[in-house]
Amino acid sequence: MDIGSILIMLAVLIVLARIGSRVFGRLGMPGLIGEIVVGIAIANLTIGDTSFLGMLDISIGDHPSQNYEVVEIFAELGVIFLLFSVGLETKVKDLISVGRAAMLVAVLGVIMPFIAGFALIQVYDGNIHHAMFLGAAMVATSVGITARVIKDMRLTDSKESRIIIGAAVIDDVLGMVILAIVVGMTASGEISVVNILLIVAEALIFVAAILAAALWAVPRIYNHFEKKNKENFEKPGKSRLGVNKLVLAIAVCLGLSWFADTIGLAAIIGAFFGGMLFAEYAWEWKLEEKIEAITTLFISFFFLNVGMQVDLGTLTSVSTVGLAVIVILLAAATKYFGCGLGAKLGDRSLSGGSQSIIGLGMIPRGEVGIIVASVGLASGAISAELYAVAVVMAVATAIIAPPLFSKAFRKMYPPEYRLTQDDLI
Amino acid sequence: MDIGSILIMLAVLIVLARIGSRVFGRLGMPGLIGEIVVGIAIANLTIGDTSFLGMLDISIGDHPSQNYEVVEIFAELGVIFLLFSVGLETKVKDLISVGRAAMLVAVLGVIMPFIAGFALIQVYDGNIHHAMFLGAAMVATSVGITARVIKDMRLTDSKESRIIIGAAVIDDVLGMVILAIVVGMTASGEISVVNILLIVAEALIFVAAILAAALWAVPRIYNHFEKKNKENFEKPGKSRLGVNKLVLAIAVCLGLSWFADTIGLAAIIGAFFGGMLFAEYAWEWKLEEKIEAITTLFISFFFLNVGMQVDLGTLTSVSTVGLAVIVILLAAATKYFGCGLGAKLGDRSLSGGSQSIIGLGMIPRGEVGIIVASVGLASGAISAELYAVAVVMAVATAIIAPPLFSKAFRKMYPPEYRLTQDDLI
Repeated sequence: MDIGSILIMLAVLIVLARIGSRVFGRLGMPGLIGEIVVGIAIANLTIGDTSFLGMLDISIGDHPSQNYEVVEIFAELGVIFLLFSVGLETKVKDLISVGRAAMLVAVLGVIMPFIAGFALIQVYDGNIHHAMFLGAAMVATSVGITARVIKDMRLTDSKESRIIIGAAVIDDVLGMVILAIVVGMTASGEISVVNILLIVAEALIFVAAILAAALWAVPRIYNHFEKKNKENFEKPGKSRLGVNKLVLAIAVCLGLSWFADTIGLAAIIGAFFGGMLFAEYAWEWKLEEKIEAITTLFISFFFLNVGMQVDLGTLTSVSTVGLAVIVILLAAATKYFGCGLGAKLGDRSLSGGSQSIIGLGMIPRGEVGIIVASVGLASGAISAELYAVAVVMAVATAIIAPPLFSKAFRKMYPPEYRLTQDDLI
Repeated sequence: MDIGSILIMLAVLIVLARIGSRVFGRLGMPGLIGEIVVGIAIANLTIGDTSFLGMLDISIGDHPSQNYEVVEIFAELGVIFLLFSVGLETKVKDLISVGRAAMLVAVLGVIMPFIAGFALIQVYDGNIHHAMFLGAAMVATSVGITARVIKDMRLTDSKESRIIIGAAVIDDVLGMVILAIVVGMTASGEISVVNILLIVAEALIFVAAILAAALWAVPRIYNHFEKKNKENFEKPGKSRLGVNKLVLAIAVCLGLSWFADTIGLAAIIGAFFGGMLFAEYAWEWKLEEKIEAITTLFISFFFLNVGMQVDLGTLTSVSTVGLAVIVILLAAATKYFGCGLGAKLGDRSLSGGSQSIIGLGMIPRGEVGIIVASVGLASGAISAELYAVAVVMAVATAIIAPPLFSKAFRKMYPPEYRLTQDDLI
């Protein structure tokens, strides 16, 4: 293992990401857009005969170099710890209180993009497999993008944020169901109802178990330790029971991420629920600032990596670019109106501004859309052209939505909320 | 990339390491010993027909699995951030004030183990190459081990700690010189004086540049930003200049670690100096607690990995075990007396207790001894038996020294210093 090569790559990438973030921040846009743009730039930049990535010993593709694997692991850990920290700020009862609205936001926000994507490709090339996969790639919101904006604006506590996060969890389950249907249909022409019921059942049991743990088991464990420690405190010679809180939190975060991944959910959904288990004690244990330090180390690699998926060389034909533009517009509009409508149906008290925030927050597809498209590409169900379109759609929605989202949020909440994560000199 | 497999491996290892740490902590020993012992245990444990490591998709050796590469990267980042945080607590003038003592501690602590190891193997098998490599493997102190004890006991500020850290830096340079001599002698029978002067010159220039930066450039940059911000604060419409301090610190830490590695020093030496650049501002910027959170995520993998190098299967012949015991005793005794003597010669005001602390703190060889031995094994200069002996010596000194070291430290400093890093429930 060439540790020197890894160290300099990490240092260079983290500095470039930070520069991108600052420049876009100065332009009044969320910093993560700058990080994605830096990702696109470095993946497509060639100096002389050497690609920029080559200089950092990064190679993407079927045979990734070790350095790129490090980027991928850091990216995944970054979004895992980001969602864990969102979980730390989300109390179970707050999430349950927005359950109805979140459910309708998710359902309408899944159905509308799928129908739109499906119909568009049916018109474009008439291939039903293409149509199904592009529809599926347009379904799943990547909550990592929106979560970062929410965290940076310190607005995790707002009702709109809670609805978005809750809807993203349900959206992920529905996205899995749709992917399972689409894969089944393209592979064998059949839908395995048992399989789909299994996916839904696993997800429901997982969520129910976590909610039960958060509401019932965790407070009891906590009180047990508290009581024991009080008793031992009074008896000389007895030491206090205890665990390192940060290590406990890290272990739960990684363990539940693994578990969610294993049952077919996104790892970040597990991380989010893991964070929620600690929500009542995060402040007392100073967990938030510690997890935030860890997130800072990793998270830029997530946004860089989203950008690095874009190969500008695939966007040379006019018809591809035209298709991509239409797909991007449809992907944005269907989530915006679908989720906004769902929010209103679920909670009549929501204002137009809140609907707008929720609709915008659900637009980014990010890595989830890319993953769905790669499944299609690998199975031969979609063409390289459609794959490129899906990737561009995923990245473009991740770039378009955050500025509009943060602007709408800023309008709704007074400026003192508008702190960014940069603590300036 | 199988992210699920990586996540569960990380979660399991971090929990096992923590359990080991707590158990040994309860027995009154430094927790890191527990982590090393857990590392030895999991590397040698077989359940039914499957090795424990196999269950976690870890395979060590010439063709390491991806999961083991993650362990190695985490281990390296752990000790890098650990030394960075020691640097954060070390001010340049404090380091310079112990310069003379540190120099003599390093020199005597290098010469004595080398002579002892060389002489022993000359007597044991008469092979001069074997003798030179084992001597070289016995030279270099692994400051990561001692640094963790110092940090956990919150004693970075003591004079003894500063002498140990300073000596470890010089020790690393001398270790490199000896390795260069030994490699040259065994490969071509010649010593390249130019090469050795180059190594020393590079190291001296690096250290001088860092000290100059810390004393001269960094305060000026800081004051410049402070002044600009004060001016801009008074002009409406001008925003404040600033950078995210944690990102800056991480970038400097990784960048200097890479640089030190590139010029042939240990990466952790670069990390330590990187931390020192921020020492004057670490408190104001809350850097210590943030870096500590990052270190917590990674550091257990360093100690686990030290333990995982031990293959108990190599310790079956009586003569090997006997040789290992003698090497361990010599390795400990020569550092203890050599460094203690060096400390006294360098600073007459040091008490016997202080000499003892310094001698004990320099005993652990850890990963550095293992690296030197692997160079010898790869070049055919030493046998598999001597390699095993060197590994056992490196791990055993890392296990033996910390309890004695922390006991001696505890005797010298009052109990209120004896906080551990565990913040108990």
